[in-house]
Amino acid sequence: MHDYTPPNTCSTPSECFPLSQWNETMECGSELAVDTMKKELKSRAILADCSTRMRSIVSFYFCYLLCLCLGIACVVFVSIWNSHWRGGFAWDGSALQFNWHPVLMVTGLVVLYGNGAVLYRIPLTWGQNKLPWKLLHAGVMLLALLCSILGLCAVFDFHHTNNTPNLYSLHSWIGICTTALFTAQWVMGLAGFLLPCSPMSFRKLLKPVHVWMGGCILILSIVSCISGINEKLFFALKGTTNGTVPYGNLPPEALVANSLGVLIVAFGLVVLKILSNQKWQRPEPRSEDMGYSPLLQDDS
Amino acid sequence: MHDYTPPNTCSTPSECFPLSQWNETMECGSELAVDTMKKELKSRAILADCSTRMRSIVSFYFCYLLCLCLGIACVVFVSIWNSHWRGGFAWDGSALQFNWHPVLMVTGLVVLYGNGAVLYRIPLTWGQNKLPWKLLHAGVMLLALLCSILGLCAVFDFHHTNNTPNLYSLHSWIGICTTALFTAQWVMGLAGFLLPCSPMSFRKLLKPVHVWMGGCILILSIVSCISGINEKLFFALKGTTNGTVPYGNLPPEALVANSLGVLIVAFGLVVLKILSNQKWQRPEPRSEDMGYSPLLQDDS
Repeated sequence: MHDYTPPNTCSTPSECFPLSQWNETMECGSELAVDTMKKELKSRAILADCSTRMRSIVSFYFCYLLCLCLGIACVVFVSIWNSHWRGGFAWDGSALQFNWHPVLMVTGLVVLYGNGAVLYRIPLTWGQNKLPWKLLHAGVMLLALLCSILGLCAVFDFHHTNNTPNLYSLHSWIGICTTALFTAQWVMGLAGFLLPCSPMSFRKLLKPVHVWMGGCILILSIVSCISGINEKLFFALKGTTNGTVPYGNLPPEALVANSLGVLIVAFGLVVLKILSNQKWQRPEPRSEDMGYSPLLQDDS
Repeated sequence: MHDYTPPNTCSTPSECFPLSQWNETMECGSELAVDTMKKELKSRAILADCSTRMRSIVSFYFCYLLCLCLGIACVVFVSIWNSHWRGGFAWDGSALQFNWHPVLMVTGLVVLYGNGAVLYRIPLTWGQNKLPWKLLHAGVMLLALLCSILGLCAVFDFHHTNNTPNLYSLHSWIGICTTALFTAQWVMGLAGFLLPCSPMSFRKLLKPVHVWMGGCILILSIVSCISGINEKLFFALKGTTNGTVPYGNLPPEALVANSLGVLIVAFGLVVLKILSNQKWQRPEPRSEDMGYSPLLQDDS
């Protein structure tokens, strides 16, 4: 582990609790009054700075906890919906195979993806070597990508067995673009930030594109999921046509699946909030802290 | 109009073209060599700074042009879809009344909203008093809000006439939340940034919330529109059931409406790109430039 103090962090207790300095200086008599005043002002500024940073960290962890809870809720809701109301899971070309599609897409393209994206923002990781976190980020994203690809296989195979055309709906257009962009993003991330031969100039060019594209993919994932859940409910809850309570009567299944949609949107917005907050970005390491070498260099 | 030079802007031609200074200093002889070198270095730094800013402005206008073109394309596509393939418009409770819904929602909640959101980012407006732009921002947003409310009235009235339940689908849940949030955002914006009685402390607290909520509303608008277009196409293109070419065969109508969905997503991402780029944010006025008084104060 490489220990380095992030910039502007309270490194001593007296910096965080400057009133201890106040007591010391007051004992030295009036000739040090000006000096004492200066020290006191400095101490108050440090105290205010510490307090601001502490509030920022607390509010981060509140958002992060919300992100974790919403992510778990999304996985629970999509699993319950498909196991309890849609009949469970199989890989036999039937409707039970289709049920893997929403579960894998929500778990991969939304929950795992969102959690992988915010990893670098956790303040606990800032004082440590970036390489293990970079590998974890790449690993979580790979798992998310594999879930998404498996989720697409489930629906393509279901369509193939049932002679249903592929890629005609707007949902499928946006969904396939999202997964294609995600694949390109993962490959470019591997090539740019993990391969030792990648030049620093390429990393510097790639980083803002990678960060921006990451946010776009999450937005596209949310759009795909909401349009997909909406479409599925209209297909599944047709009323007398297939012996179900119609969607318009809002049966329990519709309430659960609609709530899943709301949870996905809430999760996505919390992740985007975490990603967009400048104060929660991992501080860039100082030049003297560049001793560690995550597969050659690490500025990104 | 209140003229003020934004910070770090080339105020004289010699700052932008420092080689003219070089020629002057070279004529003064060798005793000024060190001074000349310093001036040259300073000039080069200014030139590099000007060049960076110029590139930033050019790339902004490229994005802004893209945003305008995509916005126009969205309005054209949604109008053609509903006039040519869905039979046109009326306000009689029939399907022709429903056709106002996509047109007004896409025009209001996406195109007008997105254009209203990026107004402050236009560099042309930075040297001017903010008040007219603030009023234009509020005006465009009010127009967007009215379009959205009228779009909702169209669909509620259509449902009422046809005894169709309201607000049961996920699309309608997300859509109604989007319009409700937009209404709250507009009212809070009016109260916080335009009413003279609004205290400065409230404005400072409100500004980051207003900016963040603005981005969230745009994302929610895109989600609502995509799920709505997808739903409408499944309802409208049922094949033999209603004598249309089925959606799965991708008839021209489906291609146009799917392309509309892609255009909406592209428009939204360009707007979010403009909003998120720190370099394109309107510079905060310096204290000496606070002479103008847009309904009392203007720091926001």
